[in-house]
Amino acid sequence: MSAPNAKGRLYGVGLGPGDPELVTLKSLNAIRQSPVIAWFAKAGSKGHARTIAGPHMPHGVIELPLYYPVTTEIPFEDPAYNRALSTFYDEASASLAAHLDQGRDVALLCEGDPLFYGSFMHPYVRLKDHFPVTICPGITGMSGCWTATGMPMTWGDDVLTVLPGTLPRAELAKRLEATNAAVIMKIGQNFQKIREVFEEKGLIGRAFYIERGTMDGEVVMPLADKTDGAAPYFSIIVMPGHGRRPQ
Amino acid sequence: MSAPNAKGRLYGVGLGPGDPELVTLKSLNAIRQSPVIAWFAKAGSKGHARTIAGPHMPHGVIELPLYYPVTTEIPFEDPAYNRALSTFYDEASASLAAHLDQGRDVALLCEGDPLFYGSFMHPYVRLKDHFPVTICPGITGMSGCWTATGMPMTWGDDVLTVLPGTLPRAELAKRLEATNAAVIMKIGQNFQKIREVFEEKGLIGRAFYIERGTMDGEVVMPLADKTDGAAPYFSIIVMPGHGRRPQ
Repeated sequence: MSAPNAKGRLYGVGLGPGDPELVTLKSLNAIRQSPVIAWFAKAGSKGHARTIAGPHMPHGVIELPLYYPVTTEIPFEDPAYNRALSTFYDEASASLAAHLDQGRDVALLCEGDPLFYGSFMHPYVRLKDHFPVTICPGITGMSGCWTATGMPMTWGDDVLTVLPGTLPRAELAKRLEATNAAVIMKIGQNFQKIREVFEEKGLIGRAFYIERGTMDGEVVMPLADKTDGAAPYFSIIVMPGHGRRPQ
Repeated sequence: MSAPNAKGRLYGVGLGPGDPELVTLKSLNAIRQSPVIAWFAKAGSKGHARTIAGPHMPHGVIELPLYYPVTTEIPFEDPAYNRALSTFYDEASASLAAHLDQGRDVALLCEGDPLFYGSFMHPYVRLKDHFPVTICPGITGMSGCWTATGMPMTWGDDVLTVLPGTLPRAELAKRLEATNAAVIMKIGQNFQKIREVFEEKGLIGRAFYIERGTMDGEVVMPLADKTDGAAPYFSIIVMPGHGRRPQ
């Protein structure tokens, strides 16, 4: 409850990788006490975050979907993409601020963890000096995916490297060779390149491919067995570490 | 409820970084439905995992603390440490198996995420082929700590490297220089070495020191301001990435 004229609080609500049971009590409380619930989504889609929050959504709240003008249709390197997204984040932030200015708390739903490759960070940096903010961390997508494999991910002194699959082939190769354990995010159109790097470096036998981790339709398989080349953007590849450990 | 003669299920219950509100519904359900609740702890201490679970512990369950014979008193390189720990994990696994064999489900409480540098992995690899297992991922300690800083951790194409502070100085330096964002775990006695590496590489201005992240007594400060050299083993240092992003 905010006092009259007090500004609303922005909650960055981490929802985890997809299974609605992987939401924390803190995130659940933020959802339940906010009169406005916002989320980012691809135009024409319900949105992953809104889907995860589904079973937890209270009745009678103001729902505020924020639809991306572009997603993967324009290469990130294109300045037009950057301009379009920047304008979009300005406008989305203004939509959130309009409620916060009226004293209404806003829960901004985030898949995964809000500060880990999250869209939340864009309105956050625009609004954090003007409104009170509480960030609720979430289970990361990568954690949901390595749990799906059932493989211990890092032991002892293992170094873990998290690599966007968008990186150039040579850089992926160099970094994969130099690490004990790895997670590759942002697969999509980069799948074939990534798989070839694992193969060239002799590491493909250690890697797993995961699609829809923790959700209905979850797919987990050795990367070596994934030969069709078709991978959604939000699939993940993990290479567990061996580490030093008492045996 | 298990059928007569059916084996019990082992739950690896991720509890997150410390705040009991950061427990997921899935972990909470695992705790509530298990007649036996186990956890690792340093001898003479209640144990971090048991403390986090405190507000969620049901009445009338069998509590099974598993006390480490050694923690940081013996260097890991010492073969005696390895032998002592290996024997301990064998015995701890036998204690868990005794309940599972009787058809009792066991929730093994884990701070952070069970498969991410977790003690859970040791009984898990010993028991997973003999009993059904469900792993509940948890918010990692590093996620709790970067949330405490309020700094976006990774943007766009940022590479994140997770480094145990136990690594040799030269390796820490090389890997820190080569990454966009970093998390240093296992600080303790390694603090001074780590801080010097950040200083030598001109990166100290980008790093934060966090102690007791998400808990009472939480400390967050620029690494540059942490000059006393005294850091507990479970403190964490984070260096957020800059990433490419629409601005």
